[in-house]
Amino acid sequence: MPPLSGRRNSQWDRSPSGARILRTETRTHSFENGARRARAPPLISSLQSERTAHGGAGYIPKEQAESASVGVREATRKGYAILKSGGSAVDAVVEAVTILENNPNFNAGRGSVLNIKGEVEMDALVMDGCTLACGAVAAVKKVANPIQLARLVMDKTNHVCLAADGASQFARAMGIPEVPGESLITDYAIKRWQDNLLPDADPVQAQMGKMGTVGAVAVDVQGNVACATSTGGIINKMEGRVGDTPCVGCGAYADNQIGAVAPTGHGEAIMKVVLSRQILFHMEQGKSPEEASDLSLDYMQKRVSGLGGVVVVDPKGTWAARFSSQQMPWAAAQQEQLHYGVFLGENIIEPV
Amino acid sequence: MPPLSGRRNSQWDRSPSGARILRTETRTHSFENGARRARAPPLISSLQSERTAHGGAGYIPKEQAESASVGVREATRKGYAILKSGGSAVDAVVEAVTILENNPNFNAGRGSVLNIKGEVEMDALVMDGCTLACGAVAAVKKVANPIQLARLVMDKTNHVCLAADGASQFARAMGIPEVPGESLITDYAIKRWQDNLLPDADPVQAQMGKMGTVGAVAVDVQGNVACATSTGGIINKMEGRVGDTPCVGCGAYADNQIGAVAPTGHGEAIMKVVLSRQILFHMEQGKSPEEASDLSLDYMQKRVSGLGGVVVVDPKGTWAARFSSQQMPWAAAQQEQLHYGVFLGENIIEPV
Repeated sequence: MPPLSGRRNSQWDRSPSGARILRTETRTHSFENGARRARAPPLISSLQSERTAHGGAGYIPKEQAESASVGVREATRKGYAILKSGGSAVDAVVEAVTILENNPNFNAGRGSVLNIKGEVEMDALVMDGCTLACGAVAAVKKVANPIQLARLVMDKTNHVCLAADGASQFARAMGIPEVPGESLITDYAIKRWQDNLLPDADPVQAQMGKMGTVGAVAVDVQGNVACATSTGGIINKMEGRVGDTPCVGCGAYADNQIGAVAPTGHGEAIMKVVLSRQILFHMEQGKSPEEASDLSLDYMQKRVSGLGGVVVVDPKGTWAARFSSQQMPWAAAQQEQLHYGVFLGENIIEPV
Repeated sequence: MPPLSGRRNSQWDRSPSGARILRTETRTHSFENGARRARAPPLISSLQSERTAHGGAGYIPKEQAESASVGVREATRKGYAILKSGGSAVDAVVEAVTILENNPNFNAGRGSVLNIKGEVEMDALVMDGCTLACGAVAAVKKVANPIQLARLVMDKTNHVCLAADGASQFARAMGIPEVPGESLITDYAIKRWQDNLLPDADPVQAQMGKMGTVGAVAVDVQGNVACATSTGGIINKMEGRVGDTPCVGCGAYADNQIGAVAPTGHGEAIMKVVLSRQILFHMEQGKSPEEASDLSLDYMQKRVSGLGGVVVVDPKGTWAARFSSQQMPWAAAQQEQLHYGVFLGENIIEPV
């Protein structure tokens, strides 16, 4: 690593493999030294759910898409306020995802889908692009905000991931209150769970109004990038099923030298292609966040028939929200403007 | 994908990103069609543990290194016999890892290190490079062979990973007998666990004779690659700690279009750099398995101070066993020759 310079100094280098690598020398220390220079405008982008329509039966109620978009915009605004006041990218993405977890309209925290036993089991991951530090929880129950527990794994242990009862024990040790399992369950989640247990359950119908993983990426005034994701997983999943979310490189990745990615989609497909790290490999080869996202989403569709979506940002603040599914509610805040959309090609702009 | 051709037909193409990709058209179907042509000599390579010596206090008893090497050679020979008789790469790596799990000298299955509570909790992953199908278990207890349970997750569910109690429930449903937790615990594991609990425990001493993850990669006569890894994790870990092993792209990866990787080393460091997929990205850029391994191990050491080792193979049967730690017992069988070594630069050759 180059010496800490207290300023942002990016350049394209050749790695020993010949790969193009964006060297970004900005470190948190520049802020501590008082040499706070915002070369990149702070940015946060959040996403909620890919919404896939299987077999052409893809009508999704307009009001549901609208409420999802409102929630994502709210989370993005809160994260942006943190960045504007000098907060870190990690703080911003954790706050954005916490807000989405607390919103019962989303499949994360309260509102999560139920597993085959009718319980909520959740996964979450946070990653700091400055140090590559990461923290995750897998198949954890009775916690209101898995993303905050994941952050404690990152900050307070020398591990990366804690699963199931081990994660719950750690939560207790950290003083995080255990919430009743029922407090995380919504009427909508129960209805979908019951519908899926019926002998004549229609898998196409089951995907209607599907609520997916929530996530966020950010770059702060120091040029540090971060990502966070949280999910209740897939509906009627087996007990103990772990999806892509807590799997580093699959369910998210952040590296100050390249950028940050938070994906959503079918977890098993995302894992098979290591989606997040793959997008960043394309960016290392010189592709823009948008080009890299499209290449990898296209590859996932062709290779393992997987649909999904991503929000991506590089350390210069160039961002993309791309998806191969029919819809993905997303929002991005930068330079006092809020961009958002749900359907392909949408990019509505309003003041933050 | 190209149509199934019943023969191996590899060529270097350009991906949409400009990356060089080895297209390998051989599929399992070629074997079923009777058009069995072995263009690549079958190969299996196994590894057991990186052995790191911290602070210069790195004397490791010779007899321990020798017994590890003997075990790895035995597993490699058994896997090779499967490949020679026309068995699949997946069958070969699962068999090799099963043998290592059953050997109490290794930190996988019986012989695993103990967590902070004095229990054995294990992780395992298997991946089929033909379809990118993968199966994993995380933090599973009371199972003799986690790698076989991981394979059942791959073959019998539509999930990739099951954790903790969920994995145990699935094992019962599959008729896999639950073994007493004590049956997996060796006297050596208890001694090391107790030593580490002492107030004056010496972390350098704790690492002496460290037994790490076991793993294997293989390419079969159809040109399909596969990988498998299994581990008890790190000594005195927190309950529920999940390392790199079940994390796809970190703890192993296999893709017929590039190759297969099985790593060992400090799990948290391997996750931070997504080691296995990173090595394969270098190979996609034209690097040899050896060059790609060295680049990524060097990167892991510089970026997150992590040491480790890997066995790697490409679909043509070119293989490498590389490590940044002081020692790594490994073996590779190809064209009736068994290659093996423990220390840097060793490559002893004898008939299989």
